[in-house]
Amino acid sequence: MRSIGKVAVLSVLDEPVAAGPFRIITGQVGSMGIEKVVAAVETAAKREGLIADDHYRGEHALYHAVLEALHGVCRGQLELGSILRTAGLKFAVVAGPKAEDQTAEGRWLAVALYGHIGAPRKGFEHEVIGLGINHL
Amino acid sequence: MRSIGKVAVLSVLDEPVAAGPFRIITGQVGSMGIEKVVAAVETAAKREGLIADDHYRGEHALYHAVLEALHGVCRGQLELGSILRTAGLKFAVVAGPKAEDQTAEGRWLAVALYGHIGAPRKGFEHEVIGLGINHL
Amino acid sequence: MRSIGKVAVLSVLDEPVAAGPFRIITGQVGSMGIEKVVAAVETAAKREGLIADDHYRGEHALYHAVLEALHGVCRGQLELGSILRTAGLKFAVVAGPKAEDQTAEGRWLAVALYGHIGAPRKGFEHEVIGLGINHL
Amino acid sequence: MRSIGKVAVLSVLDEPVAAGPFRIITGQVGSMGIEKVVAAVETAAKREGLIADDHYRGEHALYHAVLEALHGVCRGQLELGSILRTAGLKFAVVAGPKAEDQTAEGRWLAVALYGHIGAPRKGFEHEVIGLGINHL
Amino acid sequence: MRSIGKVAVLSVLDEPVAAGPFRIITGQVGSMGIEKVVAAVETAAKREGLIADDHYRGEHALYHAVLEALHGVCRGQLELGSILRTAGLKFAVVAGPKAEDQTAEGRWLAVALYGHIGAPRKGFEHEVIGLGINHL
Amino acid sequence: MRSIGKVAVLSVLDEPVAAGPFRIITGQVGSMGIEKVVAAVETAAKREGLIADDHYRGEHALYHAVLEALHGVCRGQLELGSILRTAGLKFAVVAGPKAEDQTAEGRWLAVALYGHIGAPRKGFEHEVIGLGINHL
Ligand SMILES: [Mg+2]
Ligand SMILES: [Mg+2]
Ligand SMILES: [Mg+2]
Ligand SMILES: [Mg+2]
Ligand SMILES: [Mg+2]
Ligand SMILES: [Mg+2]
Repeated sequence: MRSIGKVAVLSVLDEPVAAGPFRIITGQVGSMGIEKVVAAVETAAKREGLIADDHYRGEHALYHAVLEALHGVCRGQLELGSILRTAGLKFAVVAGPKAEDQTAEGRWLAVALYGHIGAPRKGFEHEVIGLGINHL
Repeated sequence: MRSIGKVAVLSVLDEPVAAGPFRIITGQVGSMGIEKVVAAVETAAKREGLIADDHYRGEHALYHAVLEALHGVCRGQLELGSILRTAGLKFAVVAGPKAEDQTAEGRWLAVALYGHIGAPRKGFEHEVIGLGINHL
Repeated sequence: MRSIGKVAVLSVLDEPVAAGPFRIITGQVGSMGIEKVVAAVETAAKREGLIADDHYRGEHALYHAVLEALHGVCRGQLELGSILRTAGLKFAVVAGPKAEDQTAEGRWLAVALYGHIGAPRKGFEHEVIGLGINHL
Repeated sequence: MRSIGKVAVLSVLDEPVAAGPFRIITGQVGSMGIEKVVAAVETAAKREGLIADDHYRGEHALYHAVLEALHGVCRGQLELGSILRTAGLKFAVVAGPKAEDQTAEGRWLAVALYGHIGAPRKGFEHEVIGLGINHL
Repeated sequence: MRSIGKVAVLSVLDEPVAAGPFRIITGQVGSMGIEKVVAAVETAAKREGLIADDHYRGEHALYHAVLEALHGVCRGQLELGSILRTAGLKFAVVAGPKAEDQTAEGRWLAVALYGHIGAPRKGFEHEVIGLGINHL
Repeated sequence: MRSIGKVAVLSVLDEPVAAGPFRIITGQVGSMGIEKVVAAVETAAKREGLIADDHYRGEHALYHAVLEALHGVCRGQLELGSILRTAGLKFAVVAGPKAEDQTAEGRWLAVALYGHIGAPRKGFEHEVIGLGINHL
């Protein structure tokens, strides 16, 4: 039984996953600014139509999902360059039911982030992951 | 090329992963108390010999890795029952190089947590993931 | 022009406010445990039908709105008795459009908390307020 | 019985309130930088004489009150533009007794903030409120 | 030139320090509950008359100073037993001018905490320090 | 019996301390940017050979120790200029055993920060201290 969070995490790890009832988009972003990560995810999700571009409601859902995923990446403070670290991240955004067998709960969004965080110097970094889930 | 974080995340998701140079243990814990999660992970890691039982050094490394993973799970406040939520989690602890091709950086630990968080009522929950990585 | 947050804040302050398109409930709770505040708000909102009792979706929206309101009350750490303070709070929950003139954005929830926080001793306390808003 | 916090909140909401023993100032500030909000409040409070310009003591009291109010506005991370959001805020600063009937507790400060937070795009935002109280 | 913070830190470390214009008290507390640390400091400060027992104002100043000191001890989350750690702490509370040469700024409080934090097992711990300063 | 944390704190306070088995370096940095403080400490520690320049492992240990020390300095939010405050800090970095009598636990790092934080205006500031300890 597929669930929206696991689909998002497997997608961001480039593992094979059957989409089933889920819509999945992926992309990547490297930055010392959290706002660049948020913008990259929002832009991709709107361009691919996972959330509407002309209403706030879906953007609000996605914004909080991205921030929740960033808590896993940042582990305590939503900061990158301001505490001298940089992140190179892949992202996956998934829209669909909370799980294949929970269609009565309406549509949800999952945002998964995976990559490396560390000093702005090759190899001086380690892996991070984050997942945010919200109702649409 | 396998890396310690990805090995931990795939293991906690029950996805197939070749151990290679990594030692992997898994388990599960459900609780309204963060301290129960920390204790379950530490107990398993000591029992299986991933960290020594008679020195503080390894426990210190593991403790901070677990807390970092819990930031992904809790997304803002390291609290469960005290803010009326409960978590059912699987965990994976991996010891080994930071990545297969980075053996010059010594031994590291990765802790991955995956499961569901929500109200203490079946189905009233959504998925969460967390990953913490530390040098041993 | 009435907006959902202002309606919630005026209601929790016992100020006169015309409900218009909004449904408003109020109540009160005093406790040294955050989880008691969350439970009191959720119980009242379900009893009065602002969110459905048999689906997770509305409870998820309300849960995050309550936590956001508690950030205003707690100002840094979502803790009461565990850091030796207690809170006596009124709450208002409002459901409706984000504002009277923004009906195209669907239904939203606002949770307002107002009261006193301080030592468990009469008069040794000061006022606090909090507001959380989420899409339903 | 009027209390300093309620007077500040009603003032920032443009609701009628009799000043009684309280001194009240109001203003507004829109920004993607938290530091701009702090500066706007401090500048207004000094210009109107609510705190002395030539001593640190009152500024220290006000600084912490503003930060506490910002916790209600920001709900978790004291960040605006760095996490891709902007805020348009009114502020009220009130000086006086903690409440009309508590003059034995000396002078206090209350800072209330009210407005909208969201994406830098009209209508893509929702309301926020914050209140900070400190002894002078 | 002596300053209130340095006097508090040297006192909590059992280093020799001349009191000069400062009043200094010290004590110790070991606990898995933050609230026990706050209570121990408040009780000692009232018993020795550094703050009045019958007014809220001084207790408010001390409470926030203790919480600020606890941020240095806890480094991210104001939690002890709830994240499976315990603390054995000495404390010093100092009342007086902010510094010997800054008497125009009135009376201030400094709270210093020093000790060990770690697992509830001898030797499985490391040192911590914290300092909170507030105007009285 | 000397311990690494107390040696770091006494060093940063310019108090006399016998190095014994510890290596001690000190320096100073004044800034409105957290990242400048991190960089100053890392640069000094590498230049003096307390951590290796060509491996990530030691830098990872030091990075987390500096962040932990900054929690004591910042007390809630790892921010300086972004919340309109500046810090003038001395730092001490100490490498060695966790304590003179605990050589079986390997090498550790302690980072102590001490100085003043406040408005960017002379005298409008108070003291702060922070200590971070990590295994090397
Ligand atoms: Mg949620
Ligand atoms: Mg929101
Ligand atoms: Mg207070
Ligand atoms: Mg201060
Ligand atoms: Mg790290
Ligand atoms: Mg530690």
